[in-house]
Amino acid sequence: MRKHLKRILIFIMVLAMVVPAVTAITNRAQASQQGSTKVANEDVVISSLSTKAPKYIFLFIGDGMSYPQIQAASYYLGTMKSNGGVETQDLEFMNFPVAGTAKTFDSTSFCPDSASTATSIATGYKTYSGTINMDTTLTIPYETISEKLKQQKGYKIGVISSVNLNHATPAAFYAHQASRNNYYEIGIEMVESGFDYFAGGALLKPTGNSGNEKDLYKVAEASGYKVIKTQEEAEKLTAKDGKAIVIAETLADSSAMSYDLDAAEGEWRLADYVEKGIEVLDNNTGFFMMVESGKIDWACHANDAAATIQDTIAFGKAVDTAIDFYKKHPNDTLILVTGDHETGGLTIGFAGTKYDTFMTNLANQKISYAKFDSDYITRYKKYDTKFETVLSDIKANFGLMPSYDKDASKNPTLVLTDYEYHKLLDAYNMTMNGIKQLTQEEKLLYGSYEPLTVTITHILNNKSGIDFTSYSHTGVPVPVFAIGNGQDMFEGYYDNTDIFKRLAQLTAVK
Amino acid sequence: MRKHLKRILIFIMVLAMVVPAVTAITNRAQASQQGSTKVANEDVVISSLSTKAPKYIFLFIGDGMSYPQIQAASYYLGTMKSNGGVETQDLEFMNFPVAGTAKTFDSTSFCPDSASTATSIATGYKTYSGTINMDTTLTIPYETISEKLKQQKGYKIGVISSVNLNHATPAAFYAHQASRNNYYEIGIEMVESGFDYFAGGALLKPTGNSGNEKDLYKVAEASGYKVIKTQEEAEKLTAKDGKAIVIAETLADSSAMSYDLDAAEGEWRLADYVEKGIEVLDNNTGFFMMVESGKIDWACHANDAAATIQDTIAFGKAVDTAIDFYKKHPNDTLILVTGDHETGGLTIGFAGTKYDTFMTNLANQKISYAKFDSDYITRYKKYDTKFETVLSDIKANFGLMPSYDKDASKNPTLVLTDYEYHKLLDAYNMTMNGIKQLTQEEKLLYGSYEPLTVTITHILNNKSGIDFTSYSHTGVPVPVFAIGNGQDMFEGYYDNTDIFKRLAQLTAVK
Repeated sequence: MRKHLKRILIFIMVLAMVVPAVTAITNRAQASQQGSTKVANEDVVISSLSTKAPKYIFLFIGDGMSYPQIQAASYYLGTMKSNGGVETQDLEFMNFPVAGTAKTFDSTSFCPDSASTATSIATGYKTYSGTINMDTTLTIPYETISEKLKQQKGYKIGVISSVNLNHATPAAFYAHQASRNNYYEIGIEMVESGFDYFAGGALLKPTGNSGNEKDLYKVAEASGYKVIKTQEEAEKLTAKDGKAIVIAETLADSSAMSYDLDAAEGEWRLADYVEKGIEVLDNNTGFFMMVESGKIDWACHANDAAATIQDTIAFGKAVDTAIDFYKKHPNDTLILVTGDHETGGLTIGFAGTKYDTFMTNLANQKISYAKFDSDYITRYKKYDTKFETVLSDIKANFGLMPSYDKDASKNPTLVLTDYEYHKLLDAYNMTMNGIKQLTQEEKLLYGSYEPLTVTITHILNNKSGIDFTSYSHTGVPVPVFAIGNGQDMFEGYYDNTDIFKRLAQLTAVK
Repeated sequence: MRKHLKRILIFIMVLAMVVPAVTAITNRAQASQQGSTKVANEDVVISSLSTKAPKYIFLFIGDGMSYPQIQAASYYLGTMKSNGGVETQDLEFMNFPVAGTAKTFDSTSFCPDSASTATSIATGYKTYSGTINMDTTLTIPYETISEKLKQQKGYKIGVISSVNLNHATPAAFYAHQASRNNYYEIGIEMVESGFDYFAGGALLKPTGNSGNEKDLYKVAEASGYKVIKTQEEAEKLTAKDGKAIVIAETLADSSAMSYDLDAAEGEWRLADYVEKGIEVLDNNTGFFMMVESGKIDWACHANDAAATIQDTIAFGKAVDTAIDFYKKHPNDTLILVTGDHETGGLTIGFAGTKYDTFMTNLANQKISYAKFDSDYITRYKKYDTKFETVLSDIKANFGLMPSYDKDASKNPTLVLTDYEYHKLLDAYNMTMNGIKQLTQEEKLLYGSYEPLTVTITHILNNKSGIDFTSYSHTGVPVPVFAIGNGQDMFEGYYDNTDIFKRLAQLTAVK
């Protein structure tokens, strides 16, 4: 009899472990099979296997990054590896078990901006383009997921961006401003957030619009932040140093980090800031880290496909750093990888190349459009450089060459046609003569960019089988990749506000 | 003691039900947390709650349809409903609980064709652009999922397409040919397949390339098919009639079904053929139905955004018909909705409109580009119609008007700028003079389309905030929506060959 009782007790214990799991899963299955196809999306049930909130949460945002950017990077890597073959080499996050999709429209437009879309991701609310964590009356602030996790759960918080730390996307995790252009006020909120680790590009307007305000870095130091502006100091930073703001030593266009294409040997990339972030944020209570690759967006605005792809690859490497951490803490970690919106209307396909692509051509681009502007165009204007000289710089930096070039026969897909040559010459003249009132056609050709530079990247893109439709953001939805504790919450095709809602549900913050 | 024994028996029974489920789920959780991020994608485990294969399988393929097409349809419907507001109205399938993504490259190109991509979906193999279910030596045929389900499981099979029934996508479910252009041979394989229900556009080359072969419809009748060519007969078709081939009574361009935009009141749309298909295929053993919306692709090739969106909406309604069936048989049904590749490089965003869209403008387009070609351009050429007259047709059919039009002030976003007016005039001259050798610029402007027509749709697209980059297919990946028995198998970002592999695993065919 005692033997039977013991068996019964074991059965009860097993059932106690097993039944709740099955109940939750059955509920979910029933929910998705109730006859309403909407049920599953509106009422996501947390997997019973992960009722404990993830302790370590990574939210990677590729600004301006959607399916075309990611797939272009994968195809570029594959075709480079196979010397022009039709091969794919995925970024590691593309193989995450969950890959949902988010709609990105905001209260202003189907083509939203980074302030409103980051607001949606950080707070679960739609608002106007240009607004950061304020409602559409511009009076009520919204609390962000990072603030909630810090205050309600004691998580350490990290905010990393390859662009300025008071730019729209990072700002949306700590600031509340009617306008994304309130850079100084955003900087003050950054300091007041008390978040533990900020790293990336320099602050914009650190002494305010008028230049009369107290320097934001000094305000930060007065509030107990260690402010670091050299890579050597950054390398030495440890958790013992307390709250820190790490600014990239090398600053590029608009005081952002370098395009990955332009970064020097040994210069810290996005992945290095993430690795340091993990080191200083890791603790037993938990942490939340938002990592933005902001220059995917900037490169897409400028229609610079090569810089876009290289920054997307660098973004993938930053995610890899988090994946290494996840492998050590698989039950406690959640990694999300998404975009805030698509930029540029990038596609892998161009009317002129039809079903062909020549993506290895992009490897001939040695510097970003921005570095060509700063290092070459400025000089051309100063010294009134001749078109012939410019052409040789274009060959050296982008691979494109006129038909009479000595290497033309070796690189047929990089030789300028008459049509392209004259487009380039027109753009050169436009750049050298200074931009006046643009015609409708010229606006489409150049946007607000340096005519010569944007024409060079357009031609190289097109000769690679790539094209853009816009210099702005588009309404194309974005992927949401997920792995780890709570990954299944991010299945389906949903609104970007659901990213916050699901994160909040998963972490049980209010 | 008997009481105890009874309790023990109940416990054992409960455990027998519960343990396998939990084991499977735990395996999956472990697989996705083993430290390898690739595990979950490469080794998908069937949910234990659906170890029984789905009896009723719907595979919807929007040819040329990816995220931009779907989201554009949703934004178009939302903005029309809200009279120009920023609202979204999703197609029902967008709310399916699972929405994965598939890569579409084939053995030839990152910009693949419908023959190779449908081969991947139907058989799990990559092959060359233009090839249907043959290996890359063009000698070994691959068996399709539909053939396997018919032969190994006795499922009834239906193949529906809005384009020709021997066109690449439908052909890939029953034929095996080195070239998609072997229309007659494909037609013969269609008859020999013994599949139960074919419906849609007419067969191409029904008497072969030379016109000397036995008419395919007669071959079909001789093989026991009921061949129906009127809507009245189609309405009367029942399962008792046995195997059937239903050809749309109204045939449009290339003997395909009408663009939804052009379909007459009462004319059967794609949804009607699906509804009839369900009626004749429904049986206790099971069925597999492939439904292609082929003219999303054709409209995108021609850069006709309005026709694209309307055919995408019609495709959504066809899926709705399957959703109704699913609601009656939620445990036995699986619905998949995907695209074979993206066409046209469509994006929701244009350099000229920046962050704005004016998608309600598209509602002014009353007919497809193809119907404008057949009903208007032909007449213009015959009667040497003046540009003024053409302009009034353009206003009536597309809403665009010159600045001097009496309604110009009421519709500012539809008024042609000088730049657009002259583009239109150039295209008119090109169309009226006949197309000779095109310059590189003209090839980009017109592709292989009627210059006037494609210029009209380009201008209307752009004035709506929409743009295309190509007249061909692109490398942008496609979504895979899933609901029902086995839905979780279609999570993640994977290769299009995995659609077959997962379907085969789920249905346990070899």
